[in-house]
Amino acid sequence: MLCVGLDPDQQKFPLSLQGQANAIFTFCRYIVDATADLVCAFKPQIAYFASARAEDQLEKLISYIHRHYPHIPVILDAKRGDIGSTASQYAIEAFERYQADAVTVNPYMGFDSMEPYLSYAGKGVIVLCRTSNPGGSDIQFLPTTDGSGEVMSVYERVAKSAATKWNTNGQMCLVVGATFPEEIAKVREIVGDMPLLIPGIGAQGGDVQATVKAGRNKNLMINSSRAILYASQGEDFAEAARKEALKTRDAINRAR
Amino acid sequence: MLCVGLDPDQQKFPLSLQGQANAIFTFCRYIVDATADLVCAFKPQIAYFASARAEDQLEKLISYIHRHYPHIPVILDAKRGDIGSTASQYAIEAFERYQADAVTVNPYMGFDSMEPYLSYAGKGVIVLCRTSNPGGSDIQFLPTTDGSGEVMSVYERVAKSAATKWNTNGQMCLVVGATFPEEIAKVREIVGDMPLLIPGIGAQGGDVQATVKAGRNKNLMINSSRAILYASQGEDFAEAARKEALKTRDAINRAR
Repeated sequence: MLCVGLDPDQQKFPLSLQGQANAIFTFCRYIVDATADLVCAFKPQIAYFASARAEDQLEKLISYIHRHYPHIPVILDAKRGDIGSTASQYAIEAFERYQADAVTVNPYMGFDSMEPYLSYAGKGVIVLCRTSNPGGSDIQFLPTTDGSGEVMSVYERVAKSAATKWNTNGQMCLVVGATFPEEIAKVREIVGDMPLLIPGIGAQGGDVQATVKAGRNKNLMINSSRAILYASQGEDFAEAARKEALKTRDAINRAR
Repeated sequence: MLCVGLDPDQQKFPLSLQGQANAIFTFCRYIVDATADLVCAFKPQIAYFASARAEDQLEKLISYIHRHYPHIPVILDAKRGDIGSTASQYAIEAFERYQADAVTVNPYMGFDSMEPYLSYAGKGVIVLCRTSNPGGSDIQFLPTTDGSGEVMSVYERVAKSAATKWNTNGQMCLVVGATFPEEIAKVREIVGDMPLLIPGIGAQGGDVQATVKAGRNKNLMINSSRAILYASQGEDFAEAARKEALKTRDAINRAR
């Protein structure tokens, strides 16, 4: 159930990679090779490539993963959200250009902003529901009412809409942060077996055992990025990343 | 008050540009030159560049606008939204790599997902509030309650938070779609003089007169993209774009 997030921050690379051409690709390739037998998915975060003008290295990285580890899906963490015509362009970016197997999307603009991704059969569409950051509560935790008088948080409405309306073809998953296990449990209650992508363990401090229990030990992708990538900033970074990934995977497996 | 959105869809380019290297940049440059004296801002939509593997042409385009029309701000329409550490990377993308003057962001993940952009003094941070697409209502229109018993839609909460908490340094603007003039009026009531970016006239059908009135004829950037860009798909596209932009600007000015 371990997903390794690939958030390549060049300032944290070991000295031998600093200033190298293709350093981002090389760093990520080492991490991928060191952890591939331990993961259910890899999740590159596109912002780190875009800020470094390194879209070509992201293309190479995803292609490398597909070639060497064809059984491991790649989630492009992009959190896109825009009107239908623009979302179609972002879907081309994620699924045709980068050949990702799934992409994260933002539900704020509603269903028609997510529909273009769903028209790619077999691709995953992972909708933000309850995020792991401190400000996640600002909008997602607002209590909402509907005609029936039932009060639910915004994130619960997102979960309910995903479960009952949006997931027309079984391609949808939800993001629910590990920093709120009781809310993972609420979402699991609403969406049944729908897969959940759970960031927030590792650097963000979420509890593995509580997370697995709240997610009912099924269809979970539990993501760790920084705690694994930067377990060491020395030349042993790949080895240290493997150790941390093993530790995390074992913690997940003990909790199952 | 006219903002021209640059959403370069290659399938709609005139024959002479089809298959040309740098066609996207060239097309946009023609539009920019044809409309620069009529606009308050240009708004390139990054998705159209990303889907075409043309980030370099977006860099060139923004640099071209800055060089030739230094008084016209460039809004990068990216609608980013992510945790703080990732948002910092997106801020680098928008403000350092692309040298945009403002960027659109998504509020679903809360204030800490917007803060990194605000640390760039003098740059605009344009937060999605009420969007012009049909699905915009799915989340934004949910009625929310708070301790005081006051009922407000999600988008009104976003407006209120922007006006009272998030806009720490006068850099914030909001996106409110022209397709809902009565909601523009509500937002204007909540945020006072805060600038509003208003998409949805032109191809999306919003009413110019109702929009200007609802926005109280102040601090509005009224965006049209497709209606101007593709006024003609023939070789006269730039001339036709100018005509349509003139018509739209005049309609705005008549409504003022």
